[in-house]
Amino acid sequence: MLAAAVKQEKEELLEAEDLRDAWSLLVPEDRLESFRALERTDAEDLFLSLSSLDQAQLLLLIPIPERRSWLRLLAPDDAADLIQEVPHEDREPLLSLLDEPTRREVGSLLAYAEDDAGGLMNPRYARVRPEMTVDEAIIYLRRQAAERTESLPYAYVLDPDQKLLGVVSYRELFTAKAGQTVREVMRTELVTVPEVMDQEDVSRLFQTNRLLALPVVDAEGRMKGVVTIDDVVDVVREEATEDIQKIGGTSALDAPYLQVSLVGMIRKRAGWLSVLFVGESLTAVAMGHFEAEIAQAVVLALFVPLVISSGGNSGGQATTLVIRAMALGEVRLRDWWRVIRREFLAGLGLGSILAAIGVVRILTWEALFHSYGPHYFLVAVAVALSLVGVVLWGTIVGSMLPFALRRLGLDPASASAPFVATLVDVTGLVIYFTTARVVLAGKLL
Amino acid sequence: MLAAAVKQEKEELLEAEDLRDAWSLLVPEDRLESFRALERTDAEDLFLSLSSLDQAQLLLLIPIPERRSWLRLLAPDDAADLIQEVPHEDREPLLSLLDEPTRREVGSLLAYAEDDAGGLMNPRYARVRPEMTVDEAIIYLRRQAAERTESLPYAYVLDPDQKLLGVVSYRELFTAKAGQTVREVMRTELVTVPEVMDQEDVSRLFQTNRLLALPVVDAEGRMKGVVTIDDVVDVVREEATEDIQKIGGTSALDAPYLQVSLVGMIRKRAGWLSVLFVGESLTAVAMGHFEAEIAQAVVLALFVPLVISSGGNSGGQATTLVIRAMALGEVRLRDWWRVIRREFLAGLGLGSILAAIGVVRILTWEALFHSYGPHYFLVAVAVALSLVGVVLWGTIVGSMLPFALRRLGLDPASASAPFVATLVDVTGLVIYFTTARVVLAGKLL
Repeated sequence: MLAAAVKQEKEELLEAEDLRDAWSLLVPEDRLESFRALERTDAEDLFLSLSSLDQAQLLLLIPIPERRSWLRLLAPDDAADLIQEVPHEDREPLLSLLDEPTRREVGSLLAYAEDDAGGLMNPRYARVRPEMTVDEAIIYLRRQAAERTESLPYAYVLDPDQKLLGVVSYRELFTAKAGQTVREVMRTELVTVPEVMDQEDVSRLFQTNRLLALPVVDAEGRMKGVVTIDDVVDVVREEATEDIQKIGGTSALDAPYLQVSLVGMIRKRAGWLSVLFVGESLTAVAMGHFEAEIAQAVVLALFVPLVISSGGNSGGQATTLVIRAMALGEVRLRDWWRVIRREFLAGLGLGSILAAIGVVRILTWEALFHSYGPHYFLVAVAVALSLVGVVLWGTIVGSMLPFALRRLGLDPASASAPFVATLVDVTGLVIYFTTARVVLAGKLL
Repeated sequence: MLAAAVKQEKEELLEAEDLRDAWSLLVPEDRLESFRALERTDAEDLFLSLSSLDQAQLLLLIPIPERRSWLRLLAPDDAADLIQEVPHEDREPLLSLLDEPTRREVGSLLAYAEDDAGGLMNPRYARVRPEMTVDEAIIYLRRQAAERTESLPYAYVLDPDQKLLGVVSYRELFTAKAGQTVREVMRTELVTVPEVMDQEDVSRLFQTNRLLALPVVDAEGRMKGVVTIDDVVDVVREEATEDIQKIGGTSALDAPYLQVSLVGMIRKRAGWLSVLFVGESLTAVAMGHFEAEIAQAVVLALFVPLVISSGGNSGGQATTLVIRAMALGEVRLRDWWRVIRREFLAGLGLGSILAAIGVVRILTWEALFHSYGPHYFLVAVAVALSLVGVVLWGTIVGSMLPFALRRLGLDPASASAPFVATLVDVTGLVIYFTTARVVLAGKLL
């Protein structure tokens, strides 16, 4: 949430900033020690700037009697995020440190899924009544200002049932004539966020509307809180991290790299790696079918990695581009036909480029080293034709897999580059050896 | 920039929203036609919600006399972004449509690199003088409010030389006593952004400080404008897109997927793909060295794709995790030693897991199909040992390459998964065949 950042005297600031920079490198004990060596306001700024996970870890190291003032420093939504990061048995004791109204707010926030609008929102915001005059509203807001932790430039207009009627900016209150009522100056055409909306959709709503905050309402139109744009920055960053990690063929780490334990790290990576390995072991089966050809023309085996990796690389490009375009909302499910047409042509083009390089490469090597036997030219033709086929196939598989996954209700980002490469490797082998069989029939084979 | 989103009557809204959703799917002519069919306010909202590129394309389709009111709808920084998207010869005519002061502002914004703080900032913001009383400041702000396109909750306190002295929030003005001067209530400990700061650093500054806006100052401390957090959301999204595309082994597209022409798309992808292909063609050289072994024991060739792809996959995981951790500031250059120690152990663990699966796989296949000849057990041992070596090697290369690139001043995200896979494929072959030679000496070889 938006907390005023207070810059300290130059020297102290550096110290506190250094500590913030070094934070992820320190073991918990060193963190605590350096933290306690800071002046109180420096320490508070540092604490506020930490992630919820770091805050939680630090808080649990602090002696119990001192915890209260640190926890109470946080806005209710940030306190809820912190409490979600601690082990279950530590939650109740922490909740009991909060004052009664905040505890109720945090409790109801904890009931929301972390990834919903309800889990992002702050339940504290400035509210006014429609029948107030502008001057009354200003006086009323002045009184509320003391308790608010948010510094939003809007006040929300609610009826006695907490139903959201409109919104009014401080600027509009400033510029209104003194006798006007809030109802007369408020805007009633509102963009609202349902409390169960997924955080990715919330971030898209901010993208189209470009407001600093959006009100969260329940199914009856009652206002529950506000989501502010600074939380959206975190959402955008988090979602990108998850997608990148999936594209790289791991499960999402859900924590900073250096803070994941070795065992946790292996667990996050071994799953996909094993699946890919088992899938890739089909290449041994595929190659087994062509064992006779390999025995007869060992030269064919030399180009296996080159041909199949080209399919994997072009497929990896295609899947990555489509996954990102989907995440940004640039490509939707029903665009699959436009995508496949483009990728078909792109795949043909890219395959032809690689085929040309491949032919030049084989002919040059043959001229220099006589590496590939009497039928080198036919080998080059077989490699070139296979490259066009394999790259085209890789591109199509890579671009369509995210559509298939999304259609099945799965995360398109699971169509990771290595996953596509594995799929394409097996089929790539079949394309290569079948092509070679046709091209080299009667000569090498 | 923050523009008030005005929600229309239910039915019209849907129409405008549908059009916004379908925007990227329409050809330019259809866009123009549907756009002109909208009511003026709907059309304005749609226009404001488009990306700078879409705005520019649309504007150039609109008849020249009508362009002015659309261009003037934009805040100066957004107008500058739009003008950066049009061909050079169209820039001057568009600039001439702006009013004189805005033209000067936009002109000076165009002088900044798009990726600098100066290129992100809005030169319009609310300003007050330190010697004003709070009441004078409020009256003065009311007058300014009419011209502002920003709806920030802060006013900046400047001296006559435009030097930034402090900041005061509307809330602080509200809650101050009437007789106080601005100097008495303003905060003077400021976080400022140098105008030449890179946008990624700007986004990190927002992450630690959690403010809605930061003032941009030049080397002499003169205030040039404000960067608001909604621009930071775009920066975070853009930078993630660039990284994802690079990790996927393409150049950054710099435009939505469906808007890149086929030729442009091939150009963005062919470069890396060709480099990878040439690199990968070293696998043919490496395998050429082991041609005798392959001829003698064709069974060895069957496991080539399996073994080398495991190195590529584990290397791709490692590089992706490290690239993202670097981008998030979780891992820095000097952390390389901590990373390599972790990855060494992770690589050993992951390699052992795959080796175990590999042994089970080969023994099962042998029991079922008698596929691998009399020395199947030694083949399994050779494959298993190679897997440990190749996965370990892939993990280390993948995790260290981003460090090497950053050390050389290059973008770590260029250490794409396919790049690592290519590096590892060649060495993986050498590891595999060398291991096989040792294990199978006197038996198969």
